[in-house]
Amino acid sequence: MDATAAKVIAGTMAYLNENYLKLQAGYLFPEIARRVREFCEANPEAAKRLIRCGIGDVTEPLPPAAVQAMKAAVDELSVRETFRGYGHEQGGDFLRSKIAQIDYRARGMEIADDEIFVSDGSKSDCGFILDILGDRNRIAITNPVYPVYVDTNVMAGHTGLPNESGQYEGIIYLPCRAENEFVPEPPNEHADVVYLCFPNNPTGAVATRAQLERWVSYAQEHKALLLYDAAYEGYISDPQIPRSIFEIPGGTECAVEFRSFSKTGGFTGVRCGFTVMTKRLLAQTADGRELPLHSLWHRRWSTKANSVSYPVQRGAEALYSEEGRAQVRGLIEHYMGNARVLSEAAKAAGMEVYGGKNAPYIWVRTPRGLTSWQMFDRMLQELNVVVTPGSGFGSEGEGYFRISAFNSRANAEEVARRLRGASFS
Amino acid sequence: MDATAAKVIAGTMAYLNENYLKLQAGYLFPEIARRVREFCEANPEAAKRLIRCGIGDVTEPLPPAAVQAMKAAVDELSVRETFRGYGHEQGGDFLRSKIAQIDYRARGMEIADDEIFVSDGSKSDCGFILDILGDRNRIAITNPVYPVYVDTNVMAGHTGLPNESGQYEGIIYLPCRAENEFVPEPPNEHADVVYLCFPNNPTGAVATRAQLERWVSYAQEHKALLLYDAAYEGYISDPQIPRSIFEIPGGTECAVEFRSFSKTGGFTGVRCGFTVMTKRLLAQTADGRELPLHSLWHRRWSTKANSVSYPVQRGAEALYSEEGRAQVRGLIEHYMGNARVLSEAAKAAGMEVYGGKNAPYIWVRTPRGLTSWQMFDRMLQELNVVVTPGSGFGSEGEGYFRISAFNSRANAEEVARRLRGASFS
Repeated sequence: MDATAAKVIAGTMAYLNENYLKLQAGYLFPEIARRVREFCEANPEAAKRLIRCGIGDVTEPLPPAAVQAMKAAVDELSVRETFRGYGHEQGGDFLRSKIAQIDYRARGMEIADDEIFVSDGSKSDCGFILDILGDRNRIAITNPVYPVYVDTNVMAGHTGLPNESGQYEGIIYLPCRAENEFVPEPPNEHADVVYLCFPNNPTGAVATRAQLERWVSYAQEHKALLLYDAAYEGYISDPQIPRSIFEIPGGTECAVEFRSFSKTGGFTGVRCGFTVMTKRLLAQTADGRELPLHSLWHRRWSTKANSVSYPVQRGAEALYSEEGRAQVRGLIEHYMGNARVLSEAAKAAGMEVYGGKNAPYIWVRTPRGLTSWQMFDRMLQELNVVVTPGSGFGSEGEGYFRISAFNSRANAEEVARRLRGASFS
Repeated sequence: MDATAAKVIAGTMAYLNENYLKLQAGYLFPEIARRVREFCEANPEAAKRLIRCGIGDVTEPLPPAAVQAMKAAVDELSVRETFRGYGHEQGGDFLRSKIAQIDYRARGMEIADDEIFVSDGSKSDCGFILDILGDRNRIAITNPVYPVYVDTNVMAGHTGLPNESGQYEGIIYLPCRAENEFVPEPPNEHADVVYLCFPNNPTGAVATRAQLERWVSYAQEHKALLLYDAAYEGYISDPQIPRSIFEIPGGTECAVEFRSFSKTGGFTGVRCGFTVMTKRLLAQTADGRELPLHSLWHRRWSTKANSVSYPVQRGAEALYSEEGRAQVRGLIEHYMGNARVLSEAAKAAGMEVYGGKNAPYIWVRTPRGLTSWQMFDRMLQELNVVVTPGSGFGSEGEGYFRISAFNSRANAEEVARRLRGASFS
């Protein structure tokens, strides 16, 4: 805003951020919660056999290593001699160094400790990152997509209004379809900022090394910034598939990576994640000066946060211990076992099934031309299973639904049983 | 941004948020940390007797009620039957209802449970609130002030550049001086949004009922929004002084209140706070429609957050139990005991002392015309005591320094002893 102009404007009431008024309906998951609540209230008997495979929320207990570390940290805070108050706004050194060393340097990626920024989860980070970016960027986002990327851009005023299919004016949408195996190629037009998420939420697709190389090439050619959401990287078992964008030569100069302990350590309620931003990542001013984003991001954290709860950070650190890593592997194997059971059942029911191999999400074509919400309602009413309607992730998600593998084995098997017996004619 | 215009701009590189480049030097506390680190490295002997009264960080262990509740919550998460994942993005009902009932309704203020928004601390909230406000607001901020209010407005593009005294173009500064007992009267000009903080950080001043009534009247007349930071309300012992802006008739229709468990429960490292926003609080669109801010704030939390760590919320809840409340009172009495010791010593050393009666901060005029940073350096070098230079809080803080009462009694008494023996001639 031009501050001089501001002086001339004498408002008669505080102004709200009108961009919020462009947002459509409720955020997806609250809307699902509302429909489920209404169904359960109207059908108390069916409610008893309800199984939730909707929101991607973990179900298994925390790894014992994290439990022990969190309790030990709380104990530290209960004694004057070991009490700690404010920590580094960007995260504790003890945690940042573990992340940088074990997740990156040990795998051949040059990431310094102070290039790790600890947060309360990658959902927050995906929104916060816009704080340090300018308003003139051309934004490209895959479709379907995790709704947070789009909605935070709408809130920040980077879009116009949505059209009939729910696409916002001003965003470049990258269609992800069965034809491209749900991994889009870089567009023919210029974008300044591109959101990518692999393993993908919601489709469960993963990007090959060659595909990611093409994205890094695009970013180099266009000097674009890749916002790479790797929250599900722990679910990749295929050794050919990159787990980080920084595995691709040049990636550290063109990408920010988002990661989370939500789906590895079962931290959806504990809250911890991080972003990785190298000091070599540049962006420009309107007059063309190229500056590192790192100092802006560092300043953002210094000014707007006081880091993550100390016991939580100690819990996250414990996931890097030998026991912690084994326990995380156990959790992932459990959920991927569910994914196999659910995928096979959906296939056996005659459905077209994607994902679920290197990702905890199964992406299923709705049978007989049902819309996503029709399928959601029928799964709820007939099978008493909550799924996520594909259209909630964008117009290209229409005609699909997502089954989450985050569940107990007993529930996954019961859902599989109901799916095999289902008929959506 | 006009989305149509955006299509015309074909940038050659991702743009950064240039408003960050307007920010001055480092954020205050990192700058203090840097000077202290350099001093300690150069003077290892003096470093051993260093006492920190700078950053307002608590020193005493967590209340046992919170420790017990946090550990019990971690135990809950360690067992499948009681495991919890994502909570309500706006905070757990168990905590929101306690806050609304005990802090507000029991004291005669009409606040509903869903008007409480739980966060990781009021520092974050003070920045986040700008997400839902428009860019055309005239912002008024006290001087001196907690730097976060100013810096987050600079980041959001609500200001021009700073002038020689560090004041940003576009902000209305409200001087707080000894003459007005550091409580400003409403200005003669129009403001849309006003930041107020009582008990004040850094001056330790409190606002009387009559003073707050004048601010609510101003807000009603100008349809202004008051952003009321009550992070230190627990330190008010004078029953005549309001602890909430909502105690003033009309306050619920013109103010947002920020509160924190940092200085009551000693949660600076645990991280929990909350905002209170009633559904009766309105703001306007550019074309003059008046809408509740509550739905925007609710949506912000749904989209950008997954609430606060579950064990942390249970720890905060425990501060409302009978034992928890007694333990919090004990902590506050401890720190206010320090405040008395430190105030008396500074007075005995011939200094002009403010605050420290209903607030954990003592605001002291520098002797003999020393600047704030000169006094900071001399306190560091001669007394080996870290204070906060007043000018770090704004131009009106020049000529003052802040002593924090957050310390052990032994340290407070030692600082008092050194102060009494000091000579800054």
